[in-house]
Amino acid sequence: MASIKDVAQRAGVSVATVSRVLNDKGYVGHNTREKVEQAISSLNYKPNEVARSLFKKQSSTVGLIVPSIMNPFFTELARAVEDTASKLGYNVILCNSDGNSEKEQGYLDVLQQNYVNGIIISSNTLTAEQVESLNIPIVSIDREISSGLPTIVVENKRGAAVATRFLQKKGCKRIAHIRGTVGVVNAEERFEGYKEVVSSEPWYQESYIVNGNYDMQTSIQATLALLERHPEIDGIFAANDIMAIGAIKVAHQLGLKIPEQLSIVGFDGIALTNVMTPELTTIVQPIYELGEKATTMLVGLMRQQPVEETYYRLDVELVEKNST
Amino acid sequence: MASIKDVAQRAGVSVATVSRVLNDKGYVGHNTREKVEQAISSLNYKPNEVARSLFKKQSSTVGLIVPSIMNPFFTELARAVEDTASKLGYNVILCNSDGNSEKEQGYLDVLQQNYVNGIIISSNTLTAEQVESLNIPIVSIDREISSGLPTIVVENKRGAAVATRFLQKKGCKRIAHIRGTVGVVNAEERFEGYKEVVSSEPWYQESYIVNGNYDMQTSIQATLALLERHPEIDGIFAANDIMAIGAIKVAHQLGLKIPEQLSIVGFDGIALTNVMTPELTTIVQPIYELGEKATTMLVGLMRQQPVEETYYRLDVELVEKNST
Repeated sequence: MASIKDVAQRAGVSVATVSRVLNDKGYVGHNTREKVEQAISSLNYKPNEVARSLFKKQSSTVGLIVPSIMNPFFTELARAVEDTASKLGYNVILCNSDGNSEKEQGYLDVLQQNYVNGIIISSNTLTAEQVESLNIPIVSIDREISSGLPTIVVENKRGAAVATRFLQKKGCKRIAHIRGTVGVVNAEERFEGYKEVVSSEPWYQESYIVNGNYDMQTSIQATLALLERHPEIDGIFAANDIMAIGAIKVAHQLGLKIPEQLSIVGFDGIALTNVMTPELTTIVQPIYELGEKATTMLVGLMRQQPVEETYYRLDVELVEKNST
Repeated sequence: MASIKDVAQRAGVSVATVSRVLNDKGYVGHNTREKVEQAISSLNYKPNEVARSLFKKQSSTVGLIVPSIMNPFFTELARAVEDTASKLGYNVILCNSDGNSEKEQGYLDVLQQNYVNGIIISSNTLTAEQVESLNIPIVSIDREISSGLPTIVVENKRGAAVATRFLQKKGCKRIAHIRGTVGVVNAEERFEGYKEVVSSEPWYQESYIVNGNYDMQTSIQATLALLERHPEIDGIFAANDIMAIGAIKVAHQLGLKIPEQLSIVGFDGIALTNVMTPELTTIVQPIYELGEKATTMLVGLMRQQPVEETYYRLDVELVEKNST
């Protein structure tokens, strides 16, 4: 690979002159500039971005830490972050934490040491203190860490209440809930929304609530056990779409007709919900907008531009399909 | 953030001494080492990885360029690459090219300028010359660029022939094919495998072949048109799973019973195929192994270790489910 010295030699100028041309700083005569540009082009010289980032104490990369892109919600989010970052001139380093705090901390260290100058994270283990000790902008997405930090989340509790009330409106008399990972903020909020609607019902009982851990396989096991124990259940609100898809699979296995015998509502609005048979009724989050807004906000913070708003709680909406 | 100077000052030694401790090179007395280590720990000093990478002309990052992680095949592949890279001490920069040659070239430039020291790519636009001009190790995955380059692909043609023959064995008399993106090597190979089995059949005609462009929506449109034009079709081999899932959706829409009236076979073996109703019969690729092997090979090449084999064509197998 050609170096800046090779360029200087070919153009018959000093390295400092080449540097002035590259950085567009200081006076360079027209003819000299042309000679340098020809040398750059003929040698196919690429300015050394690592050296630049050392100089500027920043590289053109942002980090994105999510639990796992195997959940399509995070795939779609990652795609939105990468598209937006790319438009703004940044690359994205993608890290899967598996919701494990050691892996998260490891990635945070590595990203910071590489002068990544901003991070978008969906974490359920980080504390506000840990984030503040990082010295680079962090935007928390999907899961709120602290109300003082830049954050983009959605109306989880309200969405869950809408989903549960919709099942009631559809005539369901016994509505179960498949919870997301215990301790994760948005899972707790969705659980609250469910309870708000049904906890005063005469039929309400805690054994209608099972833990699906935001995971399809776990949801399949939990739903099987739930429906064997409580065949009277005629409605399920699952705290995310992949768990709802797991519940649909169980209904098919047990020969239950959807929605005649069992209605199911999910949460997220991933593209996959439109591919299933039946298509899934779900609380749709503006996933792409979440990723887009988070990235724009992060880049604004990194560039120390005035950022109007650093806390968003975006709205969600129920989209009815054939599972209810 | 603390600098190496701060550490030196706190420990009461020179910067060169701190550097010797950090790099574990040259003599440092036991007491001095302890003082430096205490200073590093109390200042929470993180060695500057960008400076190191400039020195070593490498960073601890590999690049992964895929058409789009929105296709679950690439999501699963990306996850395998990241897991393996992480175990070997590397981060992954993930880039979506959308199969667009300009985007691909842009990412290759950016990655190289940031001293990423190896790239795994699934490309259908790059030429061998372009790859060779890069001066860093490249492993081609899923799509062969040139037989001279490090490559990991699967038995596409054989798998496609197995799929088509299986449909015949199941009693299908009119077998259609939904092609992958025209010009993409693996799509052409799968098309060849289909033709090898059926092109000598008396019923064979070119209008049984439609282009699904490896995309679910395109496949839905193409399958609709195909089945309206040719209601006699009783078997479909789709060149990937998401197109097969699109075809299942169309069958549901048209009220066709699967597999009684229409049998469908896909290609890839993504996790999603087990979630569908009916579950999809498909040619299963060892996706995780593909990602793992590609990463191990790439890291071996980067470290200039002896690499036994640089060309793999892994086997595939038909897994029968309820769509046939």
